[in-house]
Amino acid sequence: MLLSRIKGPEDLKELSGEELELLAEELRSEIIRVTARTGGHLASSLGAVELIIALHRVFDSPRDRILFDVGHQAYAHKLLTGRQEKFDSIRQPGGLSGFTKVSESPHDAITVGHASTSLANALGMAVARDLQGADYKIAAVIGDGALTGGMALAALNKIGELGKDMLIVLNDNEMSISPNVGALAGYFKTLQVQRWVQDAEKLGKGLLERISPRLFDLADRAKEATKMILHQDNPFYAWNLRYVGPVDGHDLKGLVYLLERLKDLSGPTLLHVVTTKGKGYKVAEEDPTSWHGASPFSLEAPLAKKSRYTWSAAFGDAVTELADREEKLVVVTPAMREGSGLVRFSQTHPERFLDVGIAEDVAVTTAAGLALAGMKPVVAIYSTFLQRAVDQVIHDVAIEKLNVVFAVDRAGLVGADGPTHHGVFDLALLRAVPGMQIAAPKDALEMRAMLRAALRQSGPVALRWPRGGVEPAIDGAWPECSWGSWQVLKEGGEVYVLAFGKTLPYALAAAADDPRIGVINARFIKPIDKNALSRAAASGRILTVEDHQLTGGFGAAVLEELQDLGLKPQLRRLGLPDRFTEQGDVAQLHARAGIDAAGIRKALAEMGVTSAAAVRRGG
Amino acid sequence: MLLSRIKGPEDLKELSGEELELLAEELRSEIIRVTARTGGHLASSLGAVELIIALHRVFDSPRDRILFDVGHQAYAHKLLTGRQEKFDSIRQPGGLSGFTKVSESPHDAITVGHASTSLANALGMAVARDLQGADYKIAAVIGDGALTGGMALAALNKIGELGKDMLIVLNDNEMSISPNVGALAGYFKTLQVQRWVQDAEKLGKGLLERISPRLFDLADRAKEATKMILHQDNPFYAWNLRYVGPVDGHDLKGLVYLLERLKDLSGPTLLHVVTTKGKGYKVAEEDPTSWHGASPFSLEAPLAKKSRYTWSAAFGDAVTELADREEKLVVVTPAMREGSGLVRFSQTHPERFLDVGIAEDVAVTTAAGLALAGMKPVVAIYSTFLQRAVDQVIHDVAIEKLNVVFAVDRAGLVGADGPTHHGVFDLALLRAVPGMQIAAPKDALEMRAMLRAALRQSGPVALRWPRGGVEPAIDGAWPECSWGSWQVLKEGGEVYVLAFGKTLPYALAAAADDPRIGVINARFIKPIDKNALSRAAASGRILTVEDHQLTGGFGAAVLEELQDLGLKPQLRRLGLPDRFTEQGDVAQLHARAGIDAAGIRKALAEMGVTSAAAVRRGG
Repeated sequence: MLLSRIKGPEDLKELSGEELELLAEELRSEIIRVTARTGGHLASSLGAVELIIALHRVFDSPRDRILFDVGHQAYAHKLLTGRQEKFDSIRQPGGLSGFTKVSESPHDAITVGHASTSLANALGMAVARDLQGADYKIAAVIGDGALTGGMALAALNKIGELGKDMLIVLNDNEMSISPNVGALAGYFKTLQVQRWVQDAEKLGKGLLERISPRLFDLADRAKEATKMILHQDNPFYAWNLRYVGPVDGHDLKGLVYLLERLKDLSGPTLLHVVTTKGKGYKVAEEDPTSWHGASPFSLEAPLAKKSRYTWSAAFGDAVTELADREEKLVVVTPAMREGSGLVRFSQTHPERFLDVGIAEDVAVTTAAGLALAGMKPVVAIYSTFLQRAVDQVIHDVAIEKLNVVFAVDRAGLVGADGPTHHGVFDLALLRAVPGMQIAAPKDALEMRAMLRAALRQSGPVALRWPRGGVEPAIDGAWPECSWGSWQVLKEGGEVYVLAFGKTLPYALAAAADDPRIGVINARFIKPIDKNALSRAAASGRILTVEDHQLTGGFGAAVLEELQDLGLKPQLRRLGLPDRFTEQGDVAQLHARAGIDAAGIRKALAEMGVTSAAAVRRGG
Repeated sequence: MLLSRIKGPEDLKELSGEELELLAEELRSEIIRVTARTGGHLASSLGAVELIIALHRVFDSPRDRILFDVGHQAYAHKLLTGRQEKFDSIRQPGGLSGFTKVSESPHDAITVGHASTSLANALGMAVARDLQGADYKIAAVIGDGALTGGMALAALNKIGELGKDMLIVLNDNEMSISPNVGALAGYFKTLQVQRWVQDAEKLGKGLLERISPRLFDLADRAKEATKMILHQDNPFYAWNLRYVGPVDGHDLKGLVYLLERLKDLSGPTLLHVVTTKGKGYKVAEEDPTSWHGASPFSLEAPLAKKSRYTWSAAFGDAVTELADREEKLVVVTPAMREGSGLVRFSQTHPERFLDVGIAEDVAVTTAAGLALAGMKPVVAIYSTFLQRAVDQVIHDVAIEKLNVVFAVDRAGLVGADGPTHHGVFDLALLRAVPGMQIAAPKDALEMRAMLRAALRQSGPVALRWPRGGVEPAIDGAWPECSWGSWQVLKEGGEVYVLAFGKTLPYALAAAADDPRIGVINARFIKPIDKNALSRAAASGRILTVEDHQLTGGFGAAVLEELQDLGLKPQLRRLGLPDRFTEQGDVAQLHARAGIDAAGIRKALAEMGVTSAAAVRRGG
């Protein structure tokens, strides 16, 4: 194999054009082979293969800095920068990250996982480089989806002003995760047609064909479409950027030719590259959304995907049914239609479905506007992405006590996506917001009850649930929820374990049939159920368990409440320590953090309650 | 006075053009008169007088929704919507807000204070309106500075895609607070010249002169500049917005004429209005930056401003001197050069001063890029604005333990700016970030020591200080700081008060010379000084005092630490309750929250320590 001879990007320099093409094929095979086993960001990584080869052929990483926005499209980059032997371990416990990660390789310029950060990072690096009198190159690859994110646009603004030397590659696949939204996306399409035509006319058939035969072909066909072009404006010029493109992002020869000519230009240059998500793997090309973050699949029967009912699906079903009954309900999502289980909702209630693109701040404040105008907005957002809209929750929603419901998905540890994606800060961040109510259902039925009740509250409400599977609730069931109350699931004589969501089954398992150990579904995190807490405290011992950072989390809330109530039971708090948790199997990570059943039994023993069950099991 | 006859916007409908001009003059006088007494956002409010008159003449508020981005330019709006009698109370305790506020008036469409939120709010309202089958108009006024904010740009993207009916008025005064940064700002200038020329040529002298004589005049002069125009691209077309302008924002007649014609158009329209900040008040026109947020001033001698040495100035002096010694130091600010005390730094170290515009997320991630490339970035940011970059602190800085120093100004209650601007969440938000170190100096000298030491740490550090005055430190003094250690300022036999920053003088006053009461400068909030805490706990009682929300704040940190250490002293936590604090005099607000000296004495008494000093004072 050619690939096995590539120990680092310097080995690309001597390859012929044909060898580079062959290398692209080998990279695709390897990416598909490993992703089938581990799952991962298949479609984006396949789409960027030629671009990554061309970048490493032309630039000199790690001296030159190549930044990948989001960092999930960089599998080929990992394979070309000395990580072939570890590639099987990608997204596995202790293995390579699914994203670029500074601490993993000197070739990974940024540690990333969230979108739209590459340009601000590149700006900082360019300023540093010029202050230091260094002359290395900086190239940032950013998708058209990530470019709809506000911080990318705002960074572009400053990059243009300073005129720093850098190359920005706009990897335009007309997708973020879901098909792209936003006026700019439509604009890019217009631009593609228009520029092809202009380039074809300006350069003449010969030159364009030499640079990029496929592009020329498109340009030729596009001539028919010119009559539809209404304007010739290009926003990048307004930002003081040199604009080149669009060019075919799978035409390796054309890309290398262009990059060679662009890399030494002074000032910022934007190269607009058009790629196909999933390129070279037919099933992924045909359905790139499903293959964005692929679960492990069978190479023989890739479409025979296991489908498991998930928390996201449970939310999607609940909110869809609820919207039938509540005509003011509107769902807002920052580009997470599929991830948040909203495909069905978007089809049954398209007029009440608002995908604002990768812009969490906009999602939250748009919901505020909806609430101010009398609607009942539900913001469907992952815990990790809610971190991007904390001020909007405070400033735009909470000050006026607007009834915005936050449907917080992927709360707790998420597994293979690792530290950039774990949802382990939401409780600490949201608890600080005055008037915020926070709850976590134990199952799909309780989620339905809470969701319906949340829409009747005044003021903001956050409901959180984890990534992964859940038993479906019965369609049409809408139980009442005694808002604010905890549930004693098991009485106990000597101690109460307070748990919710993902840790509740652990608590029940740890308590088994030991009459000394009580278990409470502490489903309301803010405000806390004072009566239930007082009752638990009366047992003399309380153990809190959460799939969240200990600092400022649920246990801390219990501690604060006990102190306010003047109660002093013996207390232990189990949760995640004050460091970032690496990627891994969620159950294993829970075990390591001591928040699983065994960890609970151990803590109970240390508190002086040696569970009979634990003794029987040899714990 | 004409103004006194205006009870609401409907009274504008019948006024003649001359009366409207007269009204503008009267509004200016009233704004200047009151702002001289109360302080406030003088320059922006003066610049928007004609625009606001024209909007209320043409639109029907409150049925039509007029949104003011940031909301600080809306003094004329308050005066025209039934709040003349209360106008003297603006920014005063219990008085009108200095910003628009939904709970204050039905004419205030949004509650605001932070920039760039109006467009997402308008989007939400437009979606709601259309779902409800209503037909009211929506007009959002946004400055060119706020439009550099990412969430405004991202919202524009979605507004353009949906094509919702709304008017966006770009109030272009070439300023945010500091002179504007960013490529778009330069672009707007080009655009002004270019469009004037085009309009003049297209419409013919007659029509343009009729619509806007002043504009025509400018256009005529601008013809000379046409040779400098390099391109004709307009980013707003790319966003699918109808673009009109630029027009003279002080030409009342022209504005009314245009708004009448634009208000019924379908789809989104952007009207580009050019205004002068401080318009009509010579000192403010000449120095709009100083007159952005004016302190009370003398109408007779407006330039004889009291200058008080502030925490911001102390930071500015310290970081400027430090930059002389540390050549890797770079300061990044999100449009807060003046507010953060950085004018001197920007002049002495211009190449190491980076103002990224109103884009807190970009500021933090640019600092990450700087740190990755070997520099020592200091992000100068207000506590309230740091809320906008929580994810960037977590994702871009903390995961890789980058040594970025956050210089957090305006921490604690800020006074007249009220709930949108109080800096009372930073501890709760930052404490949750793994590896974050947080400290608060008690005076300017300690700030210098901490700042220097912070740059030597590995990992992120946040230093926080309040708004307001401080005694200057001696220039050139760089004391050592025993990193992580608290300081026992006064030994005590029965209780220790743990305070820092703004509450420390209160604690010392409350303790007076009572030997039972100890006082500790608990200057490191994370991590906590375990030894000092244990020592304090040995006294049997601890009282924590903070100018911050109680939930998740310093007292909560002490509680968590005591629990981890297994210590159980009697504990009381003083701080801000779980609601938003209104505007007011800071000392009064502290008294009301019970965190001043009297509050501390009261709490000590309730804990069983009746201070001798308190008894003497009748407390």
